[in-house]
Amino acid sequence: MKKLINDPDHVVRESLEGFAAAHPDLVSVHFNPTFVVRSDGVPDGRVGILSGGGSGHEPMHNGFVGRGMLDAACPGEVFTSPTPDQMLAATEAVSAGAGVLHLVKNYTGDVMNFEMAEEMGADEGIEVRSVVIDDDVAVEDSTYTAGRRGVGGTVLIEKMCGAAADDGRSLEEITDLARRCNSEVRSMGMALTSCTVPSAGEPTFQLADDEMEIGIGIHGEPGRDRMSLESADAVVERLMGPILSDLPFHSGDDVLLFVNGMGATPMMELYLCYRKAAAMAEDHGLNVVRNLVGPYITSLEMAGLSITMMRMTDDLVALWDAPVQTPGLRWGQ
Amino acid sequence: MKKLINDPDHVVRESLEGFAAAHPDLVSVHFNPTFVVRSDGVPDGRVGILSGGGSGHEPMHNGFVGRGMLDAACPGEVFTSPTPDQMLAATEAVSAGAGVLHLVKNYTGDVMNFEMAEEMGADEGIEVRSVVIDDDVAVEDSTYTAGRRGVGGTVLIEKMCGAAADDGRSLEEITDLARRCNSEVRSMGMALTSCTVPSAGEPTFQLADDEMEIGIGIHGEPGRDRMSLESADAVVERLMGPILSDLPFHSGDDVLLFVNGMGATPMMELYLCYRKAAAMAEDHGLNVVRNLVGPYITSLEMAGLSITMMRMTDDLVALWDAPVQTPGLRWGQ
Repeated sequence: MKKLINDPDHVVRESLEGFAAAHPDLVSVHFNPTFVVRSDGVPDGRVGILSGGGSGHEPMHNGFVGRGMLDAACPGEVFTSPTPDQMLAATEAVSAGAGVLHLVKNYTGDVMNFEMAEEMGADEGIEVRSVVIDDDVAVEDSTYTAGRRGVGGTVLIEKMCGAAADDGRSLEEITDLARRCNSEVRSMGMALTSCTVPSAGEPTFQLADDEMEIGIGIHGEPGRDRMSLESADAVVERLMGPILSDLPFHSGDDVLLFVNGMGATPMMELYLCYRKAAAMAEDHGLNVVRNLVGPYITSLEMAGLSITMMRMTDDLVALWDAPVQTPGLRWGQ
Repeated sequence: MKKLINDPDHVVRESLEGFAAAHPDLVSVHFNPTFVVRSDGVPDGRVGILSGGGSGHEPMHNGFVGRGMLDAACPGEVFTSPTPDQMLAATEAVSAGAGVLHLVKNYTGDVMNFEMAEEMGADEGIEVRSVVIDDDVAVEDSTYTAGRRGVGGTVLIEKMCGAAADDGRSLEEITDLARRCNSEVRSMGMALTSCTVPSAGEPTFQLADDEMEIGIGIHGEPGRDRMSLESADAVVERLMGPILSDLPFHSGDDVLLFVNGMGATPMMELYLCYRKAAAMAEDHGLNVVRNLVGPYITSLEMAGLSITMMRMTDDLVALWDAPVQTPGLRWGQ
């Protein structure tokens, strides 16, 4: 295992300490229980937006805490769900009188623990809603999931909900928005290489030198097909085809096209794949009105990419364009 | 070779086509000769800022073209200097009557070709200055370099010069600024793994499973020491020590601390290393007034990191904080 770490058991803690030291203007990090929260607090009467999940997918979720996106995030150990007490503490920290929305990727542990935290929050008089994100079209049910997995769509939904909260919308409205966004977004990923969880010390799975896995999960869960490596254009076709047909996307739709790096894939390759994905979207009659290209939801040092597409309306474009100031995504004032 | 590419000979071209498709609001890409230029043009009477070099280090340089940083960049083939005709065409494109500054990383091919372009520009009546960046303390002379190599400091200097140009400063003033920044910045890098140039098809160098290379260059040029893998904290000490003593940095100095990923290193590890680097800076009596953490000057899919530190004054902080809108770095309006 080749990693820039000290003790494998302290990776998340030490990384969070560095993260806190780098971004004191945007975030505060609490330990015991562990959560990341915007350093300026949630304004009174504004809905709080919270997410979380296993570490190892950075910048998601910690890197999207700040202004205009997440108000807090609960990082678990690497690829391990955070605990209900983390989620409750974070819920309390972002509760400003208008309720708290939990954005939950569909993994069994995450869903179960967020449900528990929702009940614990309610016991304390905090109105909590939760929306489960399940945008991965690759497989039904998976190693850690009943139903579809939550993947790249999460990044987009976190942005939309943060902007809606800044816009003063109610908990009910933002919950509906998150559900609508989830229904309008589809993703699929692939891997060229495995990643290695620090505490495991060995690669999560094995791929031969000429193999790739199509439909991989963000923890290395099995996908649809393990096959010989193909050209980038052929790979993009294998991902875009199922995405386009699943929603389905129709000619004339406005879309946001997100080409995401899994960790070790150079920007050069991501843009090369974006070229093909955008051309396919255009051939399908879609208008790519916004895009995002880069490593935003990663799987440690896995090489590969995922593609996410969301059907957009004018109000979603406005929410996407709204200012965001986080360590991982930043535009506007 | 596991890469998301089509034909190895078309990697740069196809990647640039995707880059252009993703960011039409910020950049335009020209071919034959190839250069990237801000899509809104350089305002009349403003100095133009140009850089360039071999591809494979993205987001540097193409990703820093836009508003408030580079006005144009010339990408060569992977790890190969761009040609004088590319540089001349880009120089013409950003010449708006106040001269053009070339920011050149110290590699023999880059320096030679930029010198030629400077002369060709002068022949056309364009006043061109150039500043050679050589911030790498690892080695004197290297595979492609006489003297020290230009590395992470380039990112910072490109930001400072773009902001100074937006501030309306003269070519002479910005040239002096770039020289001053170069004299106040030091860097050193290391690698856990090699990278593979697409046209070569094989890793540039070999490191055993328990080995790392300290002082590596951004093209895999040999560093100071090849040694057994150590803890992250020990690695950071090996990089920070030479940086601190070289300038030298003194107790009470304000600094910008930049922890850069070489390509395949997860953000989790970069923040973990930032934690140690910031602690060492503090122990040295330095005030880390600004920081940057992430993959900004990469070496394809190399795993590893580099550390860059620049001594800051209030005017440099103001230039750093000035708005920047590029695909790779973005803040402010």
